[in-house]
Amino acid sequence: MKSTIPVMSLQRLPVYLNYLKTLSNQEFISSGAIARALNMGEVLVRKDLAFTSAQGRTRVGYNTGELIAALEEYLGCNEIKNAVIFGAGGLGSALLSYGGFGNYGINIAAAFDNNPQKTGLTVGGKPVLPVEDAAAFVGEHDVKLAVICVPAKVAQSVADVLVGCNVKSILNFAPAQLSVPEGYNVRNIDVAANLAILSSLI
Amino acid sequence: MKSTIPVMSLQRLPVYLNYLKTLSNQEFISSGAIARALNMGEVLVRKDLAFTSAQGRTRVGYNTGELIAALEEYLGCNEIKNAVIFGAGGLGSALLSYGGFGNYGINIAAAFDNNPQKTGLTVGGKPVLPVEDAAAFVGEHDVKLAVICVPAKVAQSVADVLVGCNVKSILNFAPAQLSVPEGYNVRNIDVAANLAILSSLI
Repeated sequence: MKSTIPVMSLQRLPVYLNYLKTLSNQEFISSGAIARALNMGEVLVRKDLAFTSAQGRTRVGYNTGELIAALEEYLGCNEIKNAVIFGAGGLGSALLSYGGFGNYGINIAAAFDNNPQKTGLTVGGKPVLPVEDAAAFVGEHDVKLAVICVPAKVAQSVADVLVGCNVKSILNFAPAQLSVPEGYNVRNIDVAANLAILSSLI
Repeated sequence: MKSTIPVMSLQRLPVYLNYLKTLSNQEFISSGAIARALNMGEVLVRKDLAFTSAQGRTRVGYNTGELIAALEEYLGCNEIKNAVIFGAGGLGSALLSYGGFGNYGINIAAAFDNNPQKTGLTVGGKPVLPVEDAAAFVGEHDVKLAVICVPAKVAQSVADVLVGCNVKSILNFAPAQLSVPEGYNVRNIDVAANLAILSSLI
C-alpha cells in the first residue's frame, strides 16, 4: 500500500503529525478542524489520512491519540533506522547535534569526512569517521539512509560511494543534480535556492 | 509575469541554473539535452524555460551563457537582497557561514538570538544580535527575507515578530506550521520529516 501513496500526500503526513502533537488534552479532532488549522482543503486532509490505518467517525472525527499513532506507524517512527551524514562541516555538524530525528525513529549513527582534522572527533555524541570506513560501517549498522552535506563539486562522488554501499535513500543538501541508478531515491534540499524562490515571489 | 509562473516551475529554475553552470565551454545546449541530463520531460523543460527571457533556436538550442543569464535575471541573482536568520544555534550558525547564498544575490546580514551568551558574537563574519534589535535592523537594512532556525515551540512567536517587521518571505526550518497573514510567503523545510519520507519509500 505504501508504494501507492502519492508523494505529495506522503509529504503532508509529517505536517499533520506535527500539528496533532501540539494538541494536548483534545480527545477528538475532525478533518475539518485539521484542514482549517493547516489552511488546507478538508477533502484533501481526509484523502491523505485514509492512507493510514486511522478511522474517522461521522460527527466525532478522529481519536487524536489513535490518529497520531496511525501516522507514526505509517511513517515508521517506531522502528529505529540508522542514517549517516557525509560531510562534517557546518551543516553536517548541526545535523549531528539535532535532536529532532528521534521523533521519526531515525538514529544518526555517524558522519564521514575526508578531512583528517575532523575524523576522530565526536560531534553531538556521534563519531566522525574517514570516508574509507563508510562501506564497512554501513554494512555493520544496516544503514539505509544518508544525508549529503558536502560541497556541490564532490556530491556526485559521495552519491557513487552510497550507491556502492547500497544505501537506497539519499537526502542531498548540495546544490547539484545527483545521478543514481533506478531504485534509489534522492530528495534535494537546496537552502539557497529556496530563499531565491521566496525572493522571486515578493 | 512572475506572478503567473507555477510554483513547481519556479522551483525547477535553480535546478536548471545549477546544471548549466557545470557546463563549461559548451556554447549551445538543447532542451532535449537538459531534459536527459536532469531526467525530466523535454516539453516540461521548454515550458519552464519559456518563463525566462531566453530564446531557444530550432536545431541549435539555447546559447548556454544567455540561458544562464536569463535564469539569473529571472531569479534576481543580480540584485542584492538582505536576509536575516532567527536562531544562532547549530543550523543558524551553519547558514551564517554558508557561502552559497551569494549565487542568488542573497546577503545574510545578521542573525538574531535571545541567548545573551550568543548575542554580541560574530559567526561567519555576521553579527548575532538580540531579538529586540530586529525591528530596527530590518528597517535600516531593507530586509525582505528571513530564515527561522529556532525550536518549534517558539517558531510562531518569531513569525509574529517578522510579520510585525513586515518581512514578507520566511524560510522555516522549525517543524511547526506557521500562521501568517495573507500576502506573506512561508516555505517549510523539515529536515527530519524529509528523512522520514525517504525512509517510507524504501
